[in-house]
Amino acid sequence: MTNQALKEEDLKYIWHPCSQMKDYETLPLVPIKSGKGVYLTDYDGNEYIDAISSWWVNIFGHSNEYINSRVKEQLDTLEHVIFAGFTHEPAVRLSKRLINLTASNLQKIFFADNGSSAVEIALKMAFQYHKNDGKVKDIFFSLKNSYHGETLGALAIGDVELYKDIYKDIMLKTVQVASPSLVDEDEAIEDFKKKLKEHEGRVSAIIIEPLVQCAGYMQMYDKSYIKKLKAICEEEGIFLIADEIAVGFGRTGELFVCDEEIKPDFLCLSKGLTGGYLPLSVVLTTNEVYQKFYCDYSEGKAFLHSHSYTGNPLGCAAANATLDIFENENIIEKNRAKVKKLEELLEKFKSLLNVKEVRQRGLIGAVELKGYKPEERIALKVYDYALKNGVLLRPLGHVVYFMPPFVITDKELEKVVQVAYEAITTLP
Amino acid sequence: MTNQALKEEDLKYIWHPCSQMKDYETLPLVPIKSGKGVYLTDYDGNEYIDAISSWWVNIFGHSNEYINSRVKEQLDTLEHVIFAGFTHEPAVRLSKRLINLTASNLQKIFFADNGSSAVEIALKMAFQYHKNDGKVKDIFFSLKNSYHGETLGALAIGDVELYKDIYKDIMLKTVQVASPSLVDEDEAIEDFKKKLKEHEGRVSAIIIEPLVQCAGYMQMYDKSYIKKLKAICEEEGIFLIADEIAVGFGRTGELFVCDEEIKPDFLCLSKGLTGGYLPLSVVLTTNEVYQKFYCDYSEGKAFLHSHSYTGNPLGCAAANATLDIFENENIIEKNRAKVKKLEELLEKFKSLLNVKEVRQRGLIGAVELKGYKPEERIALKVYDYALKNGVLLRPLGHVVYFMPPFVITDKELEKVVQVAYEAITTLP
Repeated sequence: MTNQALKEEDLKYIWHPCSQMKDYETLPLVPIKSGKGVYLTDYDGNEYIDAISSWWVNIFGHSNEYINSRVKEQLDTLEHVIFAGFTHEPAVRLSKRLINLTASNLQKIFFADNGSSAVEIALKMAFQYHKNDGKVKDIFFSLKNSYHGETLGALAIGDVELYKDIYKDIMLKTVQVASPSLVDEDEAIEDFKKKLKEHEGRVSAIIIEPLVQCAGYMQMYDKSYIKKLKAICEEEGIFLIADEIAVGFGRTGELFVCDEEIKPDFLCLSKGLTGGYLPLSVVLTTNEVYQKFYCDYSEGKAFLHSHSYTGNPLGCAAANATLDIFENENIIEKNRAKVKKLEELLEKFKSLLNVKEVRQRGLIGAVELKGYKPEERIALKVYDYALKNGVLLRPLGHVVYFMPPFVITDKELEKVVQVAYEAITTLP
Repeated sequence: MTNQALKEEDLKYIWHPCSQMKDYETLPLVPIKSGKGVYLTDYDGNEYIDAISSWWVNIFGHSNEYINSRVKEQLDTLEHVIFAGFTHEPAVRLSKRLINLTASNLQKIFFADNGSSAVEIALKMAFQYHKNDGKVKDIFFSLKNSYHGETLGALAIGDVELYKDIYKDIMLKTVQVASPSLVDEDEAIEDFKKKLKEHEGRVSAIIIEPLVQCAGYMQMYDKSYIKKLKAICEEEGIFLIADEIAVGFGRTGELFVCDEEIKPDFLCLSKGLTGGYLPLSVVLTTNEVYQKFYCDYSEGKAFLHSHSYTGNPLGCAAANATLDIFENENIIEKNRAKVKKLEELLEKFKSLLNVKEVRQRGLIGAVELKGYKPEERIALKVYDYALKNGVLLRPLGHVVYFMPPFVITDKELEKVVQVAYEAITTLP
């Protein structure tokens, strides 16, 4: 099999995600034969450093031997079983660990398959919590420039026009409040308060991506905003949903952003949860929320949401293996040196004339360019240049970013940043 | 580890799907240690025949050696890679095979992780197809008593009140037309025509579960309805979305219901797709639909939907292994004898005084009971009786059904049906 043969075969059949398929006429698909560590290898033998962790999911490298061994053991034991009425050790173990690793108020966990579904679950739980109390709170808040997934409910609560605008006639109405990533923190808080007043008594929850709006062009803000937001939420009886699907599992430097200082009412996790192996997501919530649904069946207050593969043992095995590595290898501590290294490497972008801003939170680095029109599609140019030089980058519009697997070495990180630097400095 | 220890640990942390958690006080969770073939084994050594294929997903038994071997190979090669801009052989091979196995008009495939997401993708594609043409067709039709998933869009298009009613204030408005499973086929068609007229020019698509409304209490209808429906859809320019998530992959006797005679515009598949191993779903559609999105990026007509794990190689490996078994072992032919066997076994329920109707389509059998009030919750009584006698049944309300893995032997099927018979005849 060659790259060419597989590409042709692919385009006969497959409609790829997040793609204008016509773009593949000029920017060919890359068929990957194998992965090992940070490297992806195509059928012609070219290697690419996966500097975006394959859409922010991979943590400990491709085809990681330890995770492989644990998933294989699970295959030989129990590949799957219905999770209503039944349970299994990989899910119980994972649940206990996640609950112990997150804020102390988060005491119950609900499973799903992908990030969008996790967000929908949090929205439905928040809504039904009030409904079980006889109140209809039909409005959800989110931040401007936010992204929370692609199913219609998740899409409705997001705010990236590119993904959402087309479907506005068939979506749940939501309200976006000012984001601290785009305006001053206090201004953002004022806007939240103002809009709360406008929709008094009708707001179920506000959902945020803590610290980094990843799909929203890697816009960043500080934890101080989240603290202020949480204080108001508590006062007003609004749930705070923390969508840490992209930023969780160490990306921002800490294991999770919303810790003991924040205590969110809901925490959504996915992506890195399985180390980049398998679709699995969870929603953690409080015992208080759980209790509002706990009663005799006849009261009709149960949360009846389900997906066929809820709590899939293979996904749970990959997730447990991922947490093993975090613990056994003291990853969060180890990563601090890498965060520092990335900070140093990003320094040299600041003086470039076509650079508007350099941003970083933990192991997420972003270089925002300026002076280009959308129709120039410079993202594709940077993507193309990097690929030809052995690095997988996938800029968002005019923002070139780095979100590497944690197993990346300093030397590999230097290469990644150097290739991005060359790509940016050779732009027309 | 014992059943008791794992149950207690579970209930500290886990909120189970489709469950009133309080029910577990009287009907304990079953912790499963391992699975092999049709058998699930708990920590106390009890065995259960999985007569519902673990929520209709398992096809060739638990911990199937052949599927295990293929997933293990994939683990050693490439566990996952981003599917935008990149591709891999397991997805290409699976896509080609599914396209060759389904109706000839279905020529493109889009990947997702679960059934709900697949339904949302089909809805979004149908809507955007018209939007790309400058038309807003904001209404979706479905059948009464239908079920299409749990994310808000998928939930909105379904019609099982139990799951949907609570959220009506935050859902997309949809229209349910009469179902041929509940009224005469021609009456159902007339209702469809009437409602089409009422919403003239605004209907994007109608979605159906071909032949069996599984979550809708295993209500069944004939293919002749689908043929009539498709003829009208074609005439009126309405898309037909076939949701074969539950009924696909041989459950009704044929590999898929909507074949060359029907030619649906969209076909959603999941559940059995990976043999019951991993969350993976696909939406197949026509080249005509695909072409409506295929243009220069600047036109803004691309389908930008994505999930992190879209096209997951491990899921594709399990799916390819599943298709290998279908082909190599001539499963559809072999199953005909099993369908006949089930038919014979169901016969004896017909004379029971508390049986209203016995239904069957392929390897899905259902016994509808009568004379019980909802608050009696006889489903739980049958579930409990069966578990104590080594069979996992999970009746829907007053409907006891069978949907076993295809590897079930005649003797095992006899046991399953016998236990159900005893459960039903010993009901108070």
